[in-house]
Amino acid sequence: MAENDKTHVSRRVLLSGIAGATGAFLLPENMAGDVTNGAVENPVQDSTKVPGTPARSLGERAASEQPRRIVSSSPGGVSRTPLQDLQGIITPSDLHYERHHAGIPTIDARQYSLLVHGMVDRPTVFTLDDLKRFPASSRIHFLECSGNGGTGLSGNPPPDRTPQQIDGLASASEWIGVRLSTIFREVGVQPTAKWFLAEGMDAAMMSRSIPIDEALDDAIIAYGQNGEALRPEQGYPARLFVPGYEGSANVKWLRRIEFSDRPFMTRMETARYTDPLRDGKARMFSLVMDAKSLITSPTFPTTLTAPGWHEVSGLAWSGRGKIERVEVSVDGGQSWVDAKLQEPILSKCFSRFRHLWNWTGSAAVLMSRATDETGYTQPTAAAIRAARGPGTRYHYNHIRAWTVARDGSVTFGGAE
Amino acid sequence: MAENDKTHVSRRVLLSGIAGATGAFLLPENMAGDVTNGAVENPVQDSTKVPGTPARSLGERAASEQPRRIVSSSPGGVSRTPLQDLQGIITPSDLHYERHHAGIPTIDARQYSLLVHGMVDRPTVFTLDDLKRFPASSRIHFLECSGNGGTGLSGNPPPDRTPQQIDGLASASEWIGVRLSTIFREVGVQPTAKWFLAEGMDAAMMSRSIPIDEALDDAIIAYGQNGEALRPEQGYPARLFVPGYEGSANVKWLRRIEFSDRPFMTRMETARYTDPLRDGKARMFSLVMDAKSLITSPTFPTTLTAPGWHEVSGLAWSGRGKIERVEVSVDGGQSWVDAKLQEPILSKCFSRFRHLWNWTGSAAVLMSRATDETGYTQPTAAAIRAARGPGTRYHYNHIRAWTVARDGSVTFGGAE
Repeated sequence: MAENDKTHVSRRVLLSGIAGATGAFLLPENMAGDVTNGAVENPVQDSTKVPGTPARSLGERAASEQPRRIVSSSPGGVSRTPLQDLQGIITPSDLHYERHHAGIPTIDARQYSLLVHGMVDRPTVFTLDDLKRFPASSRIHFLECSGNGGTGLSGNPPPDRTPQQIDGLASASEWIGVRLSTIFREVGVQPTAKWFLAEGMDAAMMSRSIPIDEALDDAIIAYGQNGEALRPEQGYPARLFVPGYEGSANVKWLRRIEFSDRPFMTRMETARYTDPLRDGKARMFSLVMDAKSLITSPTFPTTLTAPGWHEVSGLAWSGRGKIERVEVSVDGGQSWVDAKLQEPILSKCFSRFRHLWNWTGSAAVLMSRATDETGYTQPTAAAIRAARGPGTRYHYNHIRAWTVARDGSVTFGGAE
Repeated sequence: MAENDKTHVSRRVLLSGIAGATGAFLLPENMAGDVTNGAVENPVQDSTKVPGTPARSLGERAASEQPRRIVSSSPGGVSRTPLQDLQGIITPSDLHYERHHAGIPTIDARQYSLLVHGMVDRPTVFTLDDLKRFPASSRIHFLECSGNGGTGLSGNPPPDRTPQQIDGLASASEWIGVRLSTIFREVGVQPTAKWFLAEGMDAAMMSRSIPIDEALDDAIIAYGQNGEALRPEQGYPARLFVPGYEGSANVKWLRRIEFSDRPFMTRMETARYTDPLRDGKARMFSLVMDAKSLITSPTFPTTLTAPGWHEVSGLAWSGRGKIERVEVSVDGGQSWVDAKLQEPILSKCFSRFRHLWNWTGSAAVLMSRATDETGYTQPTAAAIRAARGPGTRYHYNHIRAWTVARDGSVTFGGAE
C-alpha cells in the first residue's frame, strides 16, 4: 500500500493533545472527530460518552452489513452463497447455498427414521437418537453443486456477474455426524455388496447410488453443521455427507439406505448428473468434484480506486484431497505466479489463497488455477469444451477470468 | 452401542414390500409410517407427497432447534455460548459469547478511524478501507474471557449447572483481518517501543497494554468473523485479536493504538485482570490463557437412559499452541485414559476430544485434563486454590468434574 493511501497525522493534530496522551484518561473527549480523515463528512456522536446496548440472546449483523444474497424459487429452489462478500473459508450456516429438487420438507425429528437394508445381515431402522448415540465425527469440508459455474462456460454470461452468480453453489462448513463405516458395521454389510442407494424424504425422493469403497473412508450421516443441528434447508434432521462428492449425492432428509451389488440407475443419475462427452458417449457416476479455484476479490462489482498494491484473493478446493498450489495470472494466462495459501489447508475443503498484485493501471485479466495433492491441475475452458459433448451440464471446473479495465472496473470474463 | 438400542426390521415388515425395492419408484408410499420404530406415536404426513417450502434468502434453524442461551444484562452485558448443545469446534457467530463493560456501541463504519501513534516514525490514522486494503489473514482460534469458569472454583455452584453456565464465556471462530506486524511496519514502530496500548471506543474505553514481541507473531486487527463482517457485539467494525490472549485484551471497537517503552497500567489491568497469589503478591499481565479442557457431553441436564456405550465428548484449548493430549477419567481422577482428538488440531483453537465409555450403571465421576504442546498439563482445582490468594477472579483452568448417578442423571461437580 502506498503511503498516500492513508491519512498521516499532521503535526498540528499531534500538538493539539494526542501525542502527549499516555493513557485513556488523557485523551481529548472528541478525539475521533479531531483526527478522522477527510473522507468522513459527518462526525458521529462520541460512542465513548453513551452507554451501549445490552448483550442479546442472539448476535446480529450490523445494519449496514446485511448479506446480498440471490434466491430463485424455481425449480424447487436455489439460493447462492455471496462468495464475493465472504472471507476466510467458513460459510455461515444461513448463507450456505441451497439447491432443492422439490423444496424443503418440514420433518418432525421425533418421527425421523432411517431404514438401512438390502444386502446386509441385520436390516435396521435408526431413529435420530440412535444415530446421535454412536461416536461422532466432525470435519470441515466444502460442498458444491455439480452444476455450479455452468453459466461461466456455456451460457455466455454478461460481464456484470458476481462470483455469487457464477459460482455461488459452493460453500464450506464443519459437518458433524456418525461415520458411515460405523453404521455399515452395525448392520453387517455383506461382502458382495458394492453400491448403496441413498434416498431422501423430500417430494423429489432424491436418490443416488454411491460406491461403498469410496464412501467408507470419511463419509458420515450428518446431523450437525457448524456446531448446531442441521438446518431444514440442509436436510434436517439428517443427510448423507460424502466429502468431495457432488452436492446431489449428499442426499438430504435421508430416509433410506439400500445395499446392492450394482448401481441403482435412478432417474437422477441417468436423465441427470451424467456428462456427455465429445465422442458421443457419456460419463456416468462422475461423483468426485475435481480441483477448482476462483477469485473472489477483486471481482464485479468492485472498482479499483487507484493503481498500486491490491490483494487478489480467492478460494480453491478439490474433492480428491488437499490443495497443493494455486497460481495467479494477471495477463490472461500468459504468465503465472504462485499465490500464498492460508493455513490451515484441509482435505476436501476450501483453501484461501492470496496474491499481492501491483496494478500499474493498465488493462489486466485476472485468473487463478489450482493444483491438488494428486497432481491434477484445473483445466482451461477450452480443454473442458474439447472434452465434453453437446448438452454438458455439470463439473465446470475450468479456469475463470476477470477483466480489469483502465478505469479500475472489474467484470466477468476475459481471454480464458 | 448394544443391538437392542435400535429397532431391527422384522421379517414381516420386510416381506411387506421394502426388501424387494431396488429403486425409489418401488417403495410403498407410506413407508415411513410402516417401519418407524415403536417410539414414534403419531406418524407425520408423508413428506414425499407434498412439495416443500422454497429456498430462502437466509437459512433458518428448525423450529425445534432454537438455541438455549443465557443472557444477563448486568454489568455491561454478558451472554454465554451453549457449549452443551454444540458439537465440533466452530461457534456460530450469533452464539459467540459476549462480555461488555459498557454495552455495545453503535458505530458507523464509514466514520471509523484507528489512530496509531506514540513511539512510531509515522503516526497514522487508518480508515476501515485502509485496513481492508492490506493483505488479509484468516485463522480459526478460540476466544475466552479470563473470568470464565470462576463459579466452578470459588462459587460453590449448585449441581444443576450446564457447561454454558460454568464455562460459556469461550467460543471459537475464524477471524479475518490485517496482521499487526503489517500495521507496525507501516507506521515504523521504533526499536525502543516494547508495549502498546489498545483502546476501545465503547463507553468503558476499554484499554489494555500488550507486549509488542508476543503480539507480532499472529495477532491481527480483525474486521471479519466466520467469513462475514465482524458483528457489533464482537467489536464492529474492527477489534484487536491476539490469539491465545484473555478476552479483554482483544479490545473491541478499537480506536487507538499507542506505543511506549513500558506498560500503561490502565485501570483494567491494575484494579482488574490481575491474579492475587498466596504469598500476598499479585501476578500482572497474565495475558495468555493456559491449557484447559471441559466435557460438554454428558453433562447436566442430560440423563443417560441405559448402561452401555456412551461417548464422552468435549473441548480442549491452549493459548500457548496446539493441544497434544486429552485424558478422561470416569472414576474422579483415580485413573486416566487417552481420549481421541478430532482432526484438525489447530494452534490456539478449540480441539474436540472424544472417548467411548462403557457405563456399567454404577455412580461415576467424569473428568478431562488437557496437555498442550509445551508440555503443560491442566491443573487440579486444589492446585489452583493452593497457588492463588484471596479474591482471585481469573484464569480458572482447573479440571472440571461431572457426577453420573445410578439413575443416569448427570450433575456438575464431584471429587475434583
